[in-house]
Amino acid sequence: MSSLEELQKKVSELEAKLAAVKGNVGAVRQKIEVMSSEVVDSNPYSRLMALKRMGIVNNYEKIREMSVAVVGVGGVGSVTAEMLTRCGIGKLILFDYDKVELANMNRLFFQPHQAGLSKVDAASATLRAINPDVTIDAYNYNITTVDNFQNFCDTIRTGSLTEGPVDLVLSCVDNFEARMAINMACNELNQKWFESGVSENAVSGHIQFIIPGETACFACAPPLVVASNIDEKTLKRDGVCAASLPTTMGIVAGFLVQNTLKYLLSFGNVSHYLGYSAMTDYFPRMSLKPNLQCDDSFCRQRQSEYSSRPAVELATEVTEDPAPLHEDNEWGISLVDENSPEEESVGLKLVEGVQVAYAIAGDSSTPETSSAVAAEEDLEELMRKMKNM
Amino acid sequence: MSSLEELQKKVSELEAKLAAVKGNVGAVRQKIEVMSSEVVDSNPYSRLMALKRMGIVNNYEKIREMSVAVVGVGGVGSVTAEMLTRCGIGKLILFDYDKVELANMNRLFFQPHQAGLSKVDAASATLRAINPDVTIDAYNYNITTVDNFQNFCDTIRTGSLTEGPVDLVLSCVDNFEARMAINMACNELNQKWFESGVSENAVSGHIQFIIPGETACFACAPPLVVASNIDEKTLKRDGVCAASLPTTMGIVAGFLVQNTLKYLLSFGNVSHYLGYSAMTDYFPRMSLKPNLQCDDSFCRQRQSEYSSRPAVELATEVTEDPAPLHEDNEWGISLVDENSPEEESVGLKLVEGVQVAYAIAGDSSTPETSSAVAAEEDLEELMRKMKNM
Repeated sequence: MSSLEELQKKVSELEAKLAAVKGNVGAVRQKIEVMSSEVVDSNPYSRLMALKRMGIVNNYEKIREMSVAVVGVGGVGSVTAEMLTRCGIGKLILFDYDKVELANMNRLFFQPHQAGLSKVDAASATLRAINPDVTIDAYNYNITTVDNFQNFCDTIRTGSLTEGPVDLVLSCVDNFEARMAINMACNELNQKWFESGVSENAVSGHIQFIIPGETACFACAPPLVVASNIDEKTLKRDGVCAASLPTTMGIVAGFLVQNTLKYLLSFGNVSHYLGYSAMTDYFPRMSLKPNLQCDDSFCRQRQSEYSSRPAVELATEVTEDPAPLHEDNEWGISLVDENSPEEESVGLKLVEGVQVAYAIAGDSSTPETSSAVAAEEDLEELMRKMKNM
Repeated sequence: MSSLEELQKKVSELEAKLAAVKGNVGAVRQKIEVMSSEVVDSNPYSRLMALKRMGIVNNYEKIREMSVAVVGVGGVGSVTAEMLTRCGIGKLILFDYDKVELANMNRLFFQPHQAGLSKVDAASATLRAINPDVTIDAYNYNITTVDNFQNFCDTIRTGSLTEGPVDLVLSCVDNFEARMAINMACNELNQKWFESGVSENAVSGHIQFIIPGETACFACAPPLVVASNIDEKTLKRDGVCAASLPTTMGIVAGFLVQNTLKYLLSFGNVSHYLGYSAMTDYFPRMSLKPNLQCDDSFCRQRQSEYSSRPAVELATEVTEDPAPLHEDNEWGISLVDENSPEEESVGLKLVEGVQVAYAIAGDSSTPETSSAVAAEEDLEELMRKMKNM
């Protein structure tokens, strides 16, 4: 039996322990009403608002009105969500149906103590602690089932802070089916989105900006973007898994969010396709025109709307790519070279090239290089390969 | 006065609260003796060991014998340390003397509850929770003072798991003085290192691999690498601060660790210099030969050792760059083009170009482009500028 004195001592000890432990998890910051440029250690936005003084962004605080959906909260999606949260995005909507596992610990973001939690719940808790100013909605379901797909479409259509469509959808999923579902939804909703991906050998990746009707959709030229539709779950059944690295996934998430910021806040040039090959530090860029015979009827509808736009609308917020170098190829692939006179004046030369972002099945040795296609003269070969797929 | 019953109730409540709170911070995983390739959800190394099956790395588990020093645990250094920790590096040695502030929350890694803690202590705690297999040493001091500099050198020289020199030093500092200190130490110790940096306007960055005697050291051609020696603290005194973004810093950390992995585990080609310009998604690569008249006497000594090596040593582990295009320029700058026949056969073309990584003082409008130098024909102009600095 405990004496009164012993119990009182135990209460003091426990209170001290609780205070110590809570110090590590409880002391999140208060909400901040207005983004300030003030340079004090306590202002989490000073380094972002400095982008205005540096002449990079005119209206950084506008980011608080923006909403972005992140589909897939894995190696790329979780870092994407964290970057946007730290940038002070207005609203994030997360979709995933997976659980955190120790096998995910070779990528950034999730920590071992979160193993077993749903990815969206674990991510929401961490993100809210990092920045309570961001509104975070989370959907713990698979977007490819019929009911969920309808809910997914409704959420994209009404998910902004003013109950309108979200500003962007970012695809960070790991399989073909989910990419096709996002593509279908975005074509129907006329919703701009970025596709992203990392190869199964972990040493290459890409992002692709899809503007329905204006740039190729995911169904317009799938083999170029994803040649293998084997997802993580299929692989795991065979006792093998895809390789992954925190570096490649962090870089792809960085490219994705950087281009998202450029698009949302109207600075710099938004890349339509940016690839990354880690083995040689090679970064292909290109532009893909939509396929007139695309299987997706909404894609074809957006194409006809886009081509019949009144001239006044043609000055879009996104810098147009130069005239394609290969007007005559049926896939409408063009290689991006430098176009802005301003950039030419300081002598910048951009990389030329196209690269298959995923390993082609049966070509396991060095997938990211053996199927890479870069020089202009290789475009015909690429067309031939794609037709045979 | 509390009754016995009330106290016992309070003890139970406190114990429950403590258990609940501890659930969020205490449940780290156990140490793992040997890296396994087994594909189970509980194996944190399955996705890394899959790099062997994918034919990318021959000996991934060798990473456990490697030790890396990270100098500067800020926006780039903290993410660098986290990536290496998740990759299962043998030992990390961290150096910083700054504290975590809310003003750092626009970059990845640190969280608001860590505000006020020293960066090395906060980072060590998080990294140990993420991967207890990594040995982490932390030094909470400024490496540029006389006593600390000596300790820094001794630590680099004896910091490996077998008490030899570390395998690499990664510079993630934010000022000229600290870079010069690292450069001085590494020249004297004949220690390979990577320099990294992000521009004050947050939209460009670079990494540079420095092999004493073989590639340009930081003192060989400083204006190209850092044209401004204004650090964060100087800026803050004037009520202004540099801009920063989690994207640019995450990407630079990704490049840094990816090239570190390529060097440590002997795969791919290690870039000698890789730049990143976010505005146009432009990635210059180049190679810099050491300056025969370098002010650093140890640099000149390493150069003479390198040039008089026996022929058998000339097959180094790092792929040699091609013969420089401009043998006759005094700075020995060469522009990297594709050299390996293997890469040529798949048609890869690498970007050409050189870019000033930092804003030049007094040129505040668009520092990363206005001082950018890219095309070969601009090299003479670059030489002229550097001489005038």
